[in-house]
Amino acid sequence: MSVRKVYDYIDAHVDDFVDDLVKLVKQPSVSAKGEGVQECAELVEKMMKEIGFSTKILREKKGNPVVYGELKSKKTLLFYDHYDVQPPDPLEKWTYKPFSGKISGGKIYGRGTSDNKGNFVSRLKAVQALLEVTGDVPGNIKIFVEGEEEIGSPHLEPIVKKHKNLFSADAAIWEFGGTDRSGRPVLHLGLKGVLSVELKAKGASKDVHSANAPLIPNPAWCLIWALNLLKDEGENILIDGFYDDILSPSREEIECMRKIPFEEEETKKELGLRKFLRGKSGLEAQKALLYQPTCTINGLISGYTSKGSKTVLPHEASAKMDFRLVPNQQSDDIFKKLVNHLKKHGFRDLKIIKHGSTEPTRTPIDDPFVGLVAKTARKVYGRKAVIYPISAGSGPMHLFRNFLGYPVVSAGCSHPESNTHAPNENLKIESYIKGTKFIATLVTDFTS
Amino acid sequence: MSVRKVYDYIDAHVDDFVDDLVKLVKQPSVSAKGEGVQECAELVEKMMKEIGFSTKILREKKGNPVVYGELKSKKTLLFYDHYDVQPPDPLEKWTYKPFSGKISGGKIYGRGTSDNKGNFVSRLKAVQALLEVTGDVPGNIKIFVEGEEEIGSPHLEPIVKKHKNLFSADAAIWEFGGTDRSGRPVLHLGLKGVLSVELKAKGASKDVHSANAPLIPNPAWCLIWALNLLKDEGENILIDGFYDDILSPSREEIECMRKIPFEEEETKKELGLRKFLRGKSGLEAQKALLYQPTCTINGLISGYTSKGSKTVLPHEASAKMDFRLVPNQQSDDIFKKLVNHLKKHGFRDLKIIKHGSTEPTRTPIDDPFVGLVAKTARKVYGRKAVIYPISAGSGPMHLFRNFLGYPVVSAGCSHPESNTHAPNENLKIESYIKGTKFIATLVTDFTS
Repeated sequence: MSVRKVYDYIDAHVDDFVDDLVKLVKQPSVSAKGEGVQECAELVEKMMKEIGFSTKILREKKGNPVVYGELKSKKTLLFYDHYDVQPPDPLEKWTYKPFSGKISGGKIYGRGTSDNKGNFVSRLKAVQALLEVTGDVPGNIKIFVEGEEEIGSPHLEPIVKKHKNLFSADAAIWEFGGTDRSGRPVLHLGLKGVLSVELKAKGASKDVHSANAPLIPNPAWCLIWALNLLKDEGENILIDGFYDDILSPSREEIECMRKIPFEEEETKKELGLRKFLRGKSGLEAQKALLYQPTCTINGLISGYTSKGSKTVLPHEASAKMDFRLVPNQQSDDIFKKLVNHLKKHGFRDLKIIKHGSTEPTRTPIDDPFVGLVAKTARKVYGRKAVIYPISAGSGPMHLFRNFLGYPVVSAGCSHPESNTHAPNENLKIESYIKGTKFIATLVTDFTS
Repeated sequence: MSVRKVYDYIDAHVDDFVDDLVKLVKQPSVSAKGEGVQECAELVEKMMKEIGFSTKILREKKGNPVVYGELKSKKTLLFYDHYDVQPPDPLEKWTYKPFSGKISGGKIYGRGTSDNKGNFVSRLKAVQALLEVTGDVPGNIKIFVEGEEEIGSPHLEPIVKKHKNLFSADAAIWEFGGTDRSGRPVLHLGLKGVLSVELKAKGASKDVHSANAPLIPNPAWCLIWALNLLKDEGENILIDGFYDDILSPSREEIECMRKIPFEEEETKKELGLRKFLRGKSGLEAQKALLYQPTCTINGLISGYTSKGSKTVLPHEASAKMDFRLVPNQQSDDIFKKLVNHLKKHGFRDLKIIKHGSTEPTRTPIDDPFVGLVAKTARKVYGRKAVIYPISAGSGPMHLFRNFLGYPVVSAGCSHPESNTHAPNENLKIESYIKGTKFIATLVTDFTS
């Protein structure tokens, strides 16, 4: 089959492809708040069915629906995607409304355009183009679309374990990816794990006048003191045993990292920073980004936070946090260590809530599937692929890579200025279409 | 003149008195946000004029209007009040809307009913009753109503200094006061000072995905580390030199405190606490409340604070704080010490904003005016007055007591369950009317 014809089909249908993605972006699906999740899962299923997938909706207890689609043939390639998105806050920093799907300057704007509705629709459209042009796809295609990726995939493990046969495959393409600033395709072979928690401190039964401070406990102070025990000013994580199980990157992985064109100055400029944390630069910064576990405050709230001042003593305070975990840390173990550490230091009344977790995982650099994806990327983009042995990001890849046991590579249609997880998230239409061609080629190459 | 006739007038006009207070409560006047401030000052002036006061509106630069009213005669008693109120947040915890002035179960509900619209109107109504019954008041009455008390009175000092003659008096009654749980009248002879500040930390120019935590500075952590340097878990304030100028209470003041019926168990029960901070109890707790300076977090905010989790690395974080100061601390000196302390520990990029301040002050226990107010209180309430040599609260009393040089006593019409500065602030109609009679008697006693 000539992939040329498929490209022609794609180029002739750019407007339809954009319309379909805009439709999906306009359907809110904020897993953190449960907003629009059911409706979005139904829309995802409808979009799969329309091009010929047989579909299933899987659900675990009160978890968000997982949409599963399959096209039968020989060798099986699975796509992992998610239809849920990050909360769009802070709303006031968006130029266009976050669920508008507004098109401007060759970009589609909206929460999820890049992460991950764009990649999902791009994969669907690649399959549609193959089906329309050739009447069939040259391999089995499975698409797995969950609705809780942005909240740590809390219900995914039982679903994957219950439906092991459904999710069997020869290889998988992970949700994200794209090109770097100079247009090189970027592949990621693994993910850090993540552990999301919330610390909640309580004081009196209600807010009181701050004149009472000599006698009434202030949960905001309790929270400050507890957080201060987790990380020092040198960025060292202080939880007992936190670093115990960490593997250093292998010589091979370091070699791989050396070849990554690290866009250091551009990143600093974009973020208005003179230097990175601890003054790290070059390979050292790259190593920190990929192989250093983290302890991050995502949000803090207590008491009066509006304009001006208010002499109040708050009765509750909370911090949302995430820990990024590296091979071989385990989220359960780190959660236990966190709880023990705070208890040991006397914070027995602090409530520690686990919001979700995933484990760190990697596919080896020398896996044949990695070679195939890299070769296809080079062919489509005309540039050698940049390979990250692991990503600084997280997701439930370990369930597919470790439990189901096949190689997983992340490759997609996004780009560095896409503002993932931030206001004004967007996807360039050009990247979306190029990425769709790449996936159509990959499906062909994988099964031929 | 028989005060009996004045009481009869008050009792015959309870409904009118309540209507007038409700009208004032329904006019928002949140100085922290500038909401309704101009309209409230105009209403306050109108209410004074209606009963015969000659009035003036004073204004310093962009400060909120100060309303001044005067009734001419011989000896002069000044009432200090404020028409601005605390922000009503958190709104969801109010049973009735904060500016509804809803009457239920013999109480008027609304922000400001107790602090300080209730006391202001009570004083106005006492004068109205005297004028209606006797045709004149037996002394000069001045009423000074400012609109920035709840934000630390930032424009008051230049106004008082420019209009020294206007504010001259023989004595003053301060804004707050009332009865304790058992119905005893409570007098306060002084105030702590207060210094309100905000600490603001900045990171990158925008929020980023938390996967970037190994390289991108997190202002939330910077804020935690800075705050942790201000107070330790033993509640000791760590700012260099913070405790240097503090005077211990005199033997006389301690004797005065011993007589204060400290409603310890009731307070703990109301607030759901097993014990006070550092396990303090009895006279030790009373001493801490009145003579211990404080360092309080009023509010904290950074990053994502809605439901669930969000893997974001915030780009800004801030803490609102107040320091309560005791004799002889000075707010300017403490602010300098705070700035130097944080700079010395490396927090040079932290923005430290001063929102407002007042100084600690006291009128001596043996001042004749204190004796007079106590005597009148006993006469009206039928119980011996409880005298606090100083209050745990704050306000610009030092300008009247120290700069203008006359005795100042705080006495009013509130009660302990009034939820001052908290949701469901209220004023019992019974307390409001009794307090009005007390003020009418005091004006008569002071000038006779």
